[in-house]
Amino acid sequence: MKQISNNSIISSTAILHDDVIVEDNVVIHDFVVLYPGTIIRNGTEIYDHVVIGKKPTSPGSTAKQYSKEYDLTEIMENCIICPGAVIYTGTIIKNNTLIGDNCSIREKCNIGAYDIISRNVTVNYETVIGDHTRVMDNAHITGNMIIGNHCFISVMVSSTNDNSMARDELAATKLAGPIVEDYATIGAGATLLPGVRIGFNSIVGASALVTKDVPPNKVVMGVPAKVVRDV
Amino acid sequence: MKQISNNSIISSTAILHDDVIVEDNVVIHDFVVLYPGTIIRNGTEIYDHVVIGKKPTSPGSTAKQYSKEYDLTEIMENCIICPGAVIYTGTIIKNNTLIGDNCSIREKCNIGAYDIISRNVTVNYETVIGDHTRVMDNAHITGNMIIGNHCFISVMVSSTNDNSMARDELAATKLAGPIVEDYATIGAGATLLPGVRIGFNSIVGASALVTKDVPPNKVVMGVPAKVVRDV
Amino acid sequence: MKQISNNSIISSTAILHDDVIVEDNVVIHDFVVLYPGTIIRNGTEIYDHVVIGKKPTSPGSTAKQYSKEYDLTEIMENCIICPGAVIYTGTIIKNNTLIGDNCSIREKCNIGAYDIISRNVTVNYETVIGDHTRVMDNAHITGNMIIGNHCFISVMVSSTNDNSMARDELAATKLAGPIVEDYATIGAGATLLPGVRIGFNSIVGASALVTKDVPPNKVVMGVPAKVVRDV
Repeated sequence: MKQISNNSIISSTAILHDDVIVEDNVVIHDFVVLYPGTIIRNGTEIYDHVVIGKKPTSPGSTAKQYSKEYDLTEIMENCIICPGAVIYTGTIIKNNTLIGDNCSIREKCNIGAYDIISRNVTVNYETVIGDHTRVMDNAHITGNMIIGNHCFISVMVSSTNDNSMARDELAATKLAGPIVEDYATIGAGATLLPGVRIGFNSIVGASALVTKDVPPNKVVMGVPAKVVRDV
Repeated sequence: MKQISNNSIISSTAILHDDVIVEDNVVIHDFVVLYPGTIIRNGTEIYDHVVIGKKPTSPGSTAKQYSKEYDLTEIMENCIICPGAVIYTGTIIKNNTLIGDNCSIREKCNIGAYDIISRNVTVNYETVIGDHTRVMDNAHITGNMIIGNHCFISVMVSSTNDNSMARDELAATKLAGPIVEDYATIGAGATLLPGVRIGFNSIVGASALVTKDVPPNKVVMGVPAKVVRDV
Repeated sequence: MKQISNNSIISSTAILHDDVIVEDNVVIHDFVVLYPGTIIRNGTEIYDHVVIGKKPTSPGSTAKQYSKEYDLTEIMENCIICPGAVIYTGTIIKNNTLIGDNCSIREKCNIGAYDIISRNVTVNYETVIGDHTRVMDNAHITGNMIIGNHCFISVMVSSTNDNSMARDELAATKLAGPIVEDYATIGAGATLLPGVRIGFNSIVGASALVTKDVPPNKVVMGVPAKVVRDV
């Protein structure tokens, strides 16, 4: 069953599968695909070629097993989803957030309000991002990562959650994404190893390799990263 | 009003909004979207799922304010725009340039002739790139950056324009993209900090972190980058 | 001439050009484009906005010359091709492999079985990847590279094949992609210089810059990378 507001503008080329809800004042551009379970809240704009609510699937080459059911995928009020972005089932994006061109956000993520997830960013499954946080172009956010409020993750940052780099058969049961506390900043091209905690208001320099926890209010730099001063 | 040449091949699935001009000998493939103000010059080919002339918009989470008007977006003669690329309003791409798959080029950029902007590259707003220059796959070109002629920017290069990493409320008024002079080469995975100038014909090594200006005709390497020899 | 199985589900919005074969139990989602010469084998699923079989073309700004003919592009049994992926003509993808969202794989590549090529990955021309290998999000695989079986290439890895960084006019005749032997692991954000060989079962640490061959069963780290211990 679909519930589509008459007060929204939906291109005739958009594909709305069953069980889709579109509230008022929404704009849906051309060639958009909304899979079952998708809810688009009041005032959100979905640009051309966006795909929302896709299920993860495996051809036998992935370790994870996936449900055959669609979860709820919710894009809250006044968001902008830019061309070519792909958002998987079970992900929630809070109000006033922008998802950039050709981003991909996997299943069961919880993305905050007033965030910017910029272009060609990949966000892996079950990640949590707070409010007023920015993840810049071409960055990669690993699975199970936790990012706080008012954080800034610069361009080309990479993050990882598997210390064995896929060598340990049991790794899937002990994956640990990094934790980035409120107001922390990660510089361009920096790399965060599994499970590291970046403390409140700390700054990771560009190109740094973070191999261990960073205390609050510190600046770290280098490969591997070392504390160089207070913020 | 549209002006579409009868000597061009335009797929029936392409969406041409109002105020679009398509000159002779153009090929427009399936599911392309051309927003108002777009001009496609003679001999250019636009591949499937390309979006041209999109306005930047903000859901309240970006610092920049955007015009509600469409600017002129011009793709000059004999260009090739590859599948899934997104080009924003006010950007001009000169003749014989290739824009790769799933690139995104923001508003008011000026991209030269005979350039290659390769796949999954993100180019930010108001950037200027000269002629015969190549930006390779997955690189990020920051806003306000200036790149000369005959430059080579390798894969996974990142560049930045905000020394405060978004911590300074006034930063939007003093952003400074790097400057890359003619014939300079930036190696794979290198990072350019805000405002650095890479001199004529100089070479930045792979993985280098450029924190200060590089004189002409020098090779720099390392984190942070240091001069190691003449070219 | 087209051969399309009646036992497959093909969206009415998909564009199948001439000379396309779709075998049994295939699912083709919305806005997919299959160019001439494409064969989709039994049980494969092609998601929204995928483009398969595109010819490489040059606007005069590339060194390579391209054939005007379509080659055979074959996606074997039980693969999953995710939204927005672009696969060029002459590439073969073996059975049970997943190609992630917004990937781009250039012409004449040979991708193995049970592989994962994750999201926003760019693979250049004539590359060979073995079976049971994973290339993670936002990585770049250069042209002519050879990757073995059971390898793991982490996120944001970059690789290169031209020692002259495009400065040598003859470079196109002597490009040499890296070789990654079976069971090798490349860490997040690492960079591989042209022609380096990563030995059997070796591990390249995150952020490392590999400038010379790595023997089998060694762990290397740093910029430039040095052997730190046995695996």
